[in-house]
Amino acid sequence: MAEPLFRRLALIGVGLIGSSVARIARARGDLAAEVVATARSAATLARVAALGIADVVEPDPARAVAGADCVMICAPVGAYAAIGAAIAPHLAPGAIVTDVGSTKQSVIRDLGPLLPAGVHFVPAHPIAGTEFSGPDAGFAALFEGRWCLLTPLPGSDGEAVERIRELWRRCGAMVAAMEPAHHDRVLAIVSHLPHLIAFTICGTADDLADESRAEVLQFAASGFRDFTRIAGSDPTMWRDVFLNNREALLEMLARFMEDAQAMARAVRWGDGAYIEDKINRGRKIRRSLIEINQA
Amino acid sequence: MAEPLFRRLALIGVGLIGSSVARIARARGDLAAEVVATARSAATLARVAALGIADVVEPDPARAVAGADCVMICAPVGAYAAIGAAIAPHLAPGAIVTDVGSTKQSVIRDLGPLLPAGVHFVPAHPIAGTEFSGPDAGFAALFEGRWCLLTPLPGSDGEAVERIRELWRRCGAMVAAMEPAHHDRVLAIVSHLPHLIAFTICGTADDLADESRAEVLQFAASGFRDFTRIAGSDPTMWRDVFLNNREALLEMLARFMEDAQAMARAVRWGDGAYIEDKINRGRKIRRSLIEINQA
Repeated sequence: MAEPLFRRLALIGVGLIGSSVARIARARGDLAAEVVATARSAATLARVAALGIADVVEPDPARAVAGADCVMICAPVGAYAAIGAAIAPHLAPGAIVTDVGSTKQSVIRDLGPLLPAGVHFVPAHPIAGTEFSGPDAGFAALFEGRWCLLTPLPGSDGEAVERIRELWRRCGAMVAAMEPAHHDRVLAIVSHLPHLIAFTICGTADDLADESRAEVLQFAASGFRDFTRIAGSDPTMWRDVFLNNREALLEMLARFMEDAQAMARAVRWGDGAYIEDKINRGRKIRRSLIEINQA
Repeated sequence: MAEPLFRRLALIGVGLIGSSVARIARARGDLAAEVVATARSAATLARVAALGIADVVEPDPARAVAGADCVMICAPVGAYAAIGAAIAPHLAPGAIVTDVGSTKQSVIRDLGPLLPAGVHFVPAHPIAGTEFSGPDAGFAALFEGRWCLLTPLPGSDGEAVERIRELWRRCGAMVAAMEPAHHDRVLAIVSHLPHLIAFTICGTADDLADESRAEVLQFAASGFRDFTRIAGSDPTMWRDVFLNNREALLEMLARFMEDAQAMARAVRWGDGAYIEDKINRGRKIRRSLIEINQA
């Protein structure tokens, strides 16, 4: 077994992602010599203790980060400013602070200014998830073969970045670096907009008159089932993602709405060639996805 | 084994649905004593012959339906008028004409007036499918536990309707009857709109500048992958569905666009409560789907 990367890894938040990291640390032994878990809710802490996936379960985030050489924030991105305020005075000199949030500019904006000099900040985003949430939802293979994007800052310490890279490699992920603004744009189209649309269409169906709604559920064809699978994800996490990637998400949504209006117009006026062309472009993207093994 | 329901079953079109029915007929032996398959393309006919899933492979639809006591149209709904014109003069007296199209008002509009007196018309729609198409995509379990909706007309012959019900029961489907207009409305929200949206968002992503597009593919998160799965379906079939369920689809799309605009407004103005409410409604629908075992 390789030398543990960290002496003490503090996880702030132990939902799907945090509890998966904890399970990997437990299974491999080479992420950290000791894992401390903290969470806002007593129920989550009790479950983490019962699952036995952390060495220490600590309700106070200030005590959780004390002495930690790596602090990983695994909470909804809307909570980062409050978490930063709570932990910043207690961070050990030389500690690395990293995270797993789906938006990166907001994380840098909310957390960056609070961190004391001598603490290294390495924002990260493992692109992995399921429709389930909470400490019971995590599993050690979650990041296997998935991408983890790091968005280091211009002044980031090279060694700190390399240690976070290595942490994610040991979690089974492929690691790449990206500009924070570019990350937020790419994620807006591949993840945030699809989720916003899925949540929306579920509401649209729910608004139908009662007699139709029962049948919507009864006869839900494969199309709608795929949407509702996406729409089963954690509400707080997604609310925070939408609010914290506002500009990129609104731009992608506006582009999509223009395209949907153009489709509506083609349907109204019977422009079959236009519709077929759009469907074929979708198929082309699908084939590309299969080719690069992400399907 | 039960008595075969039909002496001669003619399948007009042998793609995913038609070739699945052919495979079931071959496996069970009690759908029809003889299965005749016809299709527009020589390549499809050659594959059907090679697969050995029909007793007779017949390029001429007029000859295919001659002597058939059941004719099942399994072609894109935009082709029904031409198919009707080709087969109507050759239908046997007392024959049942049925279909599997995803739109029912258009099918009744296009096919109904062409059928001679004494031929029974029983429109049907098995709600089953995959992202694959063509004669190789079919399989005998496709309809297992799925709904098949019949939309009989006011004057439909009761015995003919019952025989088509029994045919789909033998295919493993649950059968229900519905008004054609109501069918088209329900399907617009559960299937047609989700597909239109999926095709559209793939196009929106494809339109991004080249440097982003590569990364869209590379980092495709689970959200976008689900959309591209839907978007892998048959272009001609879906083009025809959109064009032939125009009014219901445009109404559902308009409702969805209003809802998406309201979400955009909530994101712009930071209305977290509104966003959370919409996400929670999506989760509620998801739970309902699980409860009724359609998930």
